[in-house]
Amino acid sequence: MTTLTLYYTPGTCAQAVRIALEEAGAAYELVRVDFAAGQQRTPEYLAVNPKGRVPALATPQGTLTETPALLAFVAQSFPEARLAPADAHGFARLQEFHSYLASTVHIAHAHRPRASRWADEPEAQAAMQRKVPQNMTECFNLIESHYLPNADQGPWVMGEQYTVADGYLFTIGTWLHSDGVDITQFPKVFAHTQRMLQRPAVQRALA
Amino acid sequence: MTTLTLYYTPGTCAQAVRIALEEAGAAYELVRVDFAAGQQRTPEYLAVNPKGRVPALATPQGTLTETPALLAFVAQSFPEARLAPADAHGFARLQEFHSYLASTVHIAHAHRPRASRWADEPEAQAAMQRKVPQNMTECFNLIESHYLPNADQGPWVMGEQYTVADGYLFTIGTWLHSDGVDITQFPKVFAHTQRMLQRPAVQRALA
Repeated sequence: MTTLTLYYTPGTCAQAVRIALEEAGAAYELVRVDFAAGQQRTPEYLAVNPKGRVPALATPQGTLTETPALLAFVAQSFPEARLAPADAHGFARLQEFHSYLASTVHIAHAHRPRASRWADEPEAQAAMQRKVPQNMTECFNLIESHYLPNADQGPWVMGEQYTVADGYLFTIGTWLHSDGVDITQFPKVFAHTQRMLQRPAVQRALA
Repeated sequence: MTTLTLYYTPGTCAQAVRIALEEAGAAYELVRVDFAAGQQRTPEYLAVNPKGRVPALATPQGTLTETPALLAFVAQSFPEARLAPADAHGFARLQEFHSYLASTVHIAHAHRPRASRWADEPEAQAAMQRKVPQNMTECFNLIESHYLPNADQGPWVMGEQYTVADGYLFTIGTWLHSDGVDITQFPKVFAHTQRMLQRPAVQRALA
């Protein structure tokens, strides 16, 4: 593994990949993509990622995209950091959680800032935005009850082992406030967030 | 690996997992979840998958959900079938494609049959449904131009190697017609579908 370059925008799910790279102790460069200036739609960035989104991770073998793919790639590229379960079933549970975050929770959130992806009419976009707090609450109720272990099983998503999934949950959890949802109604999620903020790698990723 | 049970509904993305299991030569049982009868919302099924969706795969170590997780799990559980690239970067490219299908393409499609997930008002749901053909066309234009190799690089999503990604693309491609999109406008996708239909494992999965 030589040079890695992470294309990211603060506040997006790219933060989960940055946390993973920091936890792995990886050497990487950071390129900030300025969404406010529309930089993700420039020909230069579309040559990096034709989807016009972040994160993207340039590697010596080519550029990769999609947060779940990048998280697993970082974990597998730095096995000494032990950021993913080593057995097939444990790895599948990690992937299940990533996929739920990407395809259900992130999507539930995206209907507030990105409603125009799915309908052209302003009234329809407003209707989607109104439903976001309810959907995000349902998602985090499921995370709280189904995906977070009890304290005696360990402090992290996968139990005793800290993994790349923790940075992903933490990142999406930071969106709840702007979605109109109070994170403290999910005690295990909230406690997880507090634990994450104490990790040096997370502090570096947020700096 | 002993007994596997796939909970599935014909026509859903669970078909991609069934194709993967058939290609792997896996021994598995099939449990059909009757969406028309609302079976996915029964206490019995919610005990299998609290999300009330398919696919779910019961394994000796516990039940797994989410299509990308299941596809990677099947590939890793039956390595002799060579259904995923063996190297980390190749595996990440496979995962990237899975994640794009799950989080962008499947979601674009779902705004037609499942618009009520994201807005309560019938007018807003109708607005979402109107945009589905445009979004699915954009997705498949990207698949055609960015993800499918040219013929000299091989007939499958990953090139020469057939992988679990092929069954996933094939499955979502079968939704285009009902979404009001003509698959023949994407020549590489259409040719891929025709190749898939010739595979005995695919024929068994569709039977």
